[in-house]
Amino acid sequence: MDICLLGTGGTMPLPERALTSLLIRHNGRNILIDCGEGTQVMIRKSGFSLNRIDAVLITHFHADHISGLPGLLLSIGKSERKEPVKIIGCKGISNIVKSLCVIAPELPFELEFTELDDEQGVFIINELCINYLLLCHRVPCYGYSITLKRAGKFLPENAAALGIEQKYWGLLQKGETIESNGKFFTPDMVLGTPRKGLKVTYCTDTRPTPEMAGFAQNSDLFVCEGMYANDDMLEQAVTKRHMLFSEAAKIARDANVSELWLTHFSPSLKDPYEYKDFASSLFENTVIPYELQCKCLEFERK
Amino acid sequence: MDICLLGTGGTMPLPERALTSLLIRHNGRNILIDCGEGTQVMIRKSGFSLNRIDAVLITHFHADHISGLPGLLLSIGKSERKEPVKIIGCKGISNIVKSLCVIAPELPFELEFTELDDEQGVFIINELCINYLLLCHRVPCYGYSITLKRAGKFLPENAAALGIEQKYWGLLQKGETIESNGKFFTPDMVLGTPRKGLKVTYCTDTRPTPEMAGFAQNSDLFVCEGMYANDDMLEQAVTKRHMLFSEAAKIARDANVSELWLTHFSPSLKDPYEYKDFASSLFENTVIPYELQCKCLEFERK
Repeated sequence: MDICLLGTGGTMPLPERALTSLLIRHNGRNILIDCGEGTQVMIRKSGFSLNRIDAVLITHFHADHISGLPGLLLSIGKSERKEPVKIIGCKGISNIVKSLCVIAPELPFELEFTELDDEQGVFIINELCINYLLLCHRVPCYGYSITLKRAGKFLPENAAALGIEQKYWGLLQKGETIESNGKFFTPDMVLGTPRKGLKVTYCTDTRPTPEMAGFAQNSDLFVCEGMYANDDMLEQAVTKRHMLFSEAAKIARDANVSELWLTHFSPSLKDPYEYKDFASSLFENTVIPYELQCKCLEFERK
Repeated sequence: MDICLLGTGGTMPLPERALTSLLIRHNGRNILIDCGEGTQVMIRKSGFSLNRIDAVLITHFHADHISGLPGLLLSIGKSERKEPVKIIGCKGISNIVKSLCVIAPELPFELEFTELDDEQGVFIINELCINYLLLCHRVPCYGYSITLKRAGKFLPENAAALGIEQKYWGLLQKGETIESNGKFFTPDMVLGTPRKGLKVTYCTDTRPTPEMAGFAQNSDLFVCEGMYANDDMLEQAVTKRHMLFSEAAKIARDANVSELWLTHFSPSLKDPYEYKDFASSLFENTVIPYELQCKCLEFERK
């Protein structure tokens, strides 16, 4: 699973700071979270394929998270995509996107909308299990957590003991149920206990909520807003429903994540990299990422 | 009058090529023509003030000319502007912009719409005389020509002969009518024949039309689309209602402009600067501009 943080900015795009959005590639297919003005350009810079974006997950309807969508869809259209693109977001997203797409009236593919309304839930795209959680912003806003599950090890001794012909082993290993000599065999009969998968969690824009640590629990990567670096910005953070570095770090600790990437920096935060040591003192494995910072997440070698 | 071409691209923004739009500054106030995705970032790069954009002229409703508008308006709003912003464009622009602004519901200033419907006409913004002309694209599209008029020289001998007190001379020179000893004096009584002013013409997207040369006549600067460099792209140009370098150059010659800036390059045109000599062979004073290319137009020293 390849992850690329396309930008690190919040509120508005700046010459040296693109707006925050995340690309996730798995098996050659892409999922995009958020799409502000300029996101399509950052995708081109990243080298990930526009054409292979199967779903766009939108956290909320503030312009810095969605204004790039009509341009992105037009560019995907020009890349000759014909398959539908899923658009997922808060209740009302279908109307919002249709309104924005007044300047993109003729896309060569369908848009398939999913409107989220529950406080939390789960859906699956391209084998990725995507959990969502309602956050605490000035408007309804969801965090997303993407999990790639990993089955247990294949146990040839079990398969042999059950008398399953070797030609079926690969299918069982892939998770398929097979029929042989009138009998059905399911993967759980020949696989060990599920192994640790991969998990990436993305939360912006929000105040801290009690549910966030559980939501991000044991993530390999936790991409979380840190709108303001210093604790003396707390009042501003509370008013605008954003987070301090220290608040994001606390959630990262409570959630026992492997790595925290802070993002969605306020335009008033001129040089977030100055706060690198401060951020690490709050939570050791904190990264102040650059635009287009990438990470390849791989299964443990077990 | 300061001119800044914010980008040179057409169709979609690219990592090394922002979308075409033009900023015109006069007396510290700005007018913007077109606003595609990323235009607000280019304005920041240009150093021109977002806050002082009094009017946005939109050529037509294709995304690469208007998709950046909600983000721009939000950023102007954050710069604490309170005065209205004029939005001018084809019939229907009010509905299009309102639809796009579904993600910018609370601007701290009014939008004042002007919908153009005639084949040509004129309006005035900040002392600038703005002519518009219907072009020939796949959707209704206007070219804009901005003229700063220049009055004739002040003739002190006329003022003295008329017995006008010296304290009124400055006002007359500025174009005001004054009253002195019960008599009215108008500027034309003390000014020579109007001198050459400044004129900038902006035409994109379009096929050549018979009216364009007259519209751009004697421009100091003619910013014109040259979507394709080579004449062998004619069929493509005709189908998509765009222009070749050679077609833009012919209009520049017929219009007797001082300088031609080609822009709105097709993404398929990888390196327009390769065609510099070719473009100059078509019309001598042709510039293949870079992003943020600026020019300060000044009155002749007469």
